[in-house]
Amino acid sequence: MVGAGQLARMTHQAAIALGQSLRVLAESADDGAALVTPDVVVGNYRSLPDLRAFAAGCDVITFDHEHVPGEHLEALASEGVVVRPGADALVYAQDKAAMRQRLTSLGVPCPEWAPIGSADELAAFGEVVGWPLVLKAARGGYDGRGVWMISSPSDAADQLRADTSVIAEARVPIARELAVVVARSPYGQGAAWPVVETVQRDGICVEVLAPAPGLDPERADEAQALALRIAAELGVVGVLAVELFETVTGELLVNELAMRPHNSGHWTIEGARTSQFEQHLRAVLDYPLGITTPTAPVVVMANLLGGPDDVKPASIDERVHHCMARWPDVKIHLYGKGFRPGRKVGHVTALGTDLTSVRSRAQAAADYLMNGDAE
Amino acid sequence: MVGAGQLARMTHQAAIALGQSLRVLAESADDGAALVTPDVVVGNYRSLPDLRAFAAGCDVITFDHEHVPGEHLEALASEGVVVRPGADALVYAQDKAAMRQRLTSLGVPCPEWAPIGSADELAAFGEVVGWPLVLKAARGGYDGRGVWMISSPSDAADQLRADTSVIAEARVPIARELAVVVARSPYGQGAAWPVVETVQRDGICVEVLAPAPGLDPERADEAQALALRIAAELGVVGVLAVELFETVTGELLVNELAMRPHNSGHWTIEGARTSQFEQHLRAVLDYPLGITTPTAPVVVMANLLGGPDDVKPASIDERVHHCMARWPDVKIHLYGKGFRPGRKVGHVTALGTDLTSVRSRAQAAADYLMNGDAE
Repeated sequence: MVGAGQLARMTHQAAIALGQSLRVLAESADDGAALVTPDVVVGNYRSLPDLRAFAAGCDVITFDHEHVPGEHLEALASEGVVVRPGADALVYAQDKAAMRQRLTSLGVPCPEWAPIGSADELAAFGEVVGWPLVLKAARGGYDGRGVWMISSPSDAADQLRADTSVIAEARVPIARELAVVVARSPYGQGAAWPVVETVQRDGICVEVLAPAPGLDPERADEAQALALRIAAELGVVGVLAVELFETVTGELLVNELAMRPHNSGHWTIEGARTSQFEQHLRAVLDYPLGITTPTAPVVVMANLLGGPDDVKPASIDERVHHCMARWPDVKIHLYGKGFRPGRKVGHVTALGTDLTSVRSRAQAAADYLMNGDAE
Repeated sequence: MVGAGQLARMTHQAAIALGQSLRVLAESADDGAALVTPDVVVGNYRSLPDLRAFAAGCDVITFDHEHVPGEHLEALASEGVVVRPGADALVYAQDKAAMRQRLTSLGVPCPEWAPIGSADELAAFGEVVGWPLVLKAARGGYDGRGVWMISSPSDAADQLRADTSVIAEARVPIARELAVVVARSPYGQGAAWPVVETVQRDGICVEVLAPAPGLDPERADEAQALALRIAAELGVVGVLAVELFETVTGELLVNELAMRPHNSGHWTIEGARTSQFEQHLRAVLDYPLGITTPTAPVVVMANLLGGPDDVKPASIDERVHHCMARWPDVKIHLYGKGFRPGRKVGHVTALGTDLTSVRSRAQAAADYLMNGDAE
């Protein structure tokens, strides 16, 4: 797996059960996955020689992020390395302009959008969809980075001067955000988990509710079918996460794609019979997929985002202790990362039957772990 | 963790979620856990210098087997190493004579037994309890090794000549075997999973049914209370597995003790909200214990015991492929060990509501993985 963050870390947990050995290409020896796996190559995922050395001896290479240059992946594939998902599919998770273009041509509902090369083009698009609108870097953004709310072309001066290409999208009246995580094998087998609601704060996912509360079963089926169709049309192998906007009028529009295990699927570790990490491995190893049945009527995942530097008690170990005593049913996942305010350092999962109580337990445990005792 | 077999391997999976790093003392660099953990010390668990070097820098040391000499553990403890469970407790999992003596003094129901030093003592014990009877090596036996059915004192000539001490036990009319797995923290908190039935073949556990089918709830409560009492009286820290005989008259007698994650608890990985591996870590790290609630009404674990050398298809990878296609709900655990006939190389777990169907799926998947296509 190229990348050695928390996604690789959790993939390694799943690989162990399958009798597999996960090699990771880490940026640093203290990356989250590098701390818990024996087969660590430290290197630069933007360097073809580093990728080549890493891939030597691997049955298949896959990814915990989208940042490997497509031309390197094509080079590796031409040298006989099995790359899953392949560069042809991965480009739609790397480049928002390519993704929007392809999805539009497939008839997949998206926000109105346009590639933007100049202030004039932006002004013209704004005339059509109205202001404010959303400007996005075509490549490299995540967790709210590379996304800007723009009230007029002059707001976008910096972005248009930069050498990265941008797209503009109409600002959609959003009721909430949803996500569908699916998996697809090289053989074409597909599997979908229930549609979830993802709760964002400042552009970062803070909470995932599985299944999405109150979602009409027909809409949920449509969303799953849409995600499976996208996976098939784009030739995805592995996990595909489709982030959706549910508009105030009940429409579902595709926001983003990710072709790897995704934050919106962490709940599946305890919450589904097959986790997204095991499923991703099954898919890229060309094994049949596992069942995705939930293990409880309601599952809530809450991200652990680093709290203030003066959190009390100061020791995370002590906070884990109190958290376990107070919420013995809440499962804790720590990623082995240093704590910084706002950084994703772990998550917790709670399961049960009543959304209100499950959600409040997950939130309270996450809040206590990161922010400690309230004054 | 001293020892790097499958128990350490599965403990590492649980350690990752807790943000912990598990160091293992392996006999060989290709031990199951050594293949999947980065912090591996290869050494001899019977050597105090090796143990000392291994323990340096560990917050706590614990075990995946019972074979570390007690005097070494006492030496380590006297040097300030935190050892859990401690030598004082572990002796009752190491020495069957010490265990029987202690349990008898606690009033815990056991088969009639006696320490045996000579053929005369054996003959006298046989006069009391009748023949045949069971002779056991006090130390070192497992999976049916070190246990002999004896019809007369002359059958025991070899065992009595050997320099290991032996005990004799009355042969109990067994209806079935049960096990209770519990955990105890240094603080004294206890937690118990449901009582399970363990199905043996040739002295080796082949299957675990959770909960034990048809067990009277009061008997189950008594068994859990008994195991928790034993854990408290012996000062166990970590997981304690109490193997029980259910006699034809419905009596429960203690057969064996193990102070570590145990084969009879593997079902808890998917089958309980807190697995025995996470719980063992919580206990030895002095964290509060997690809830033990089952995740399904019926959980069946079947061990994978190496099949014939001429199994077809010959590739385990191919058999895994077919197994996943046929039983997408069955979870596979491989231990990274070489396959030999009869060797425990993994296990599978199935969950559901109907014992007959869950059990047949687990058995069929295990049988196929090990023995392949029937002719």
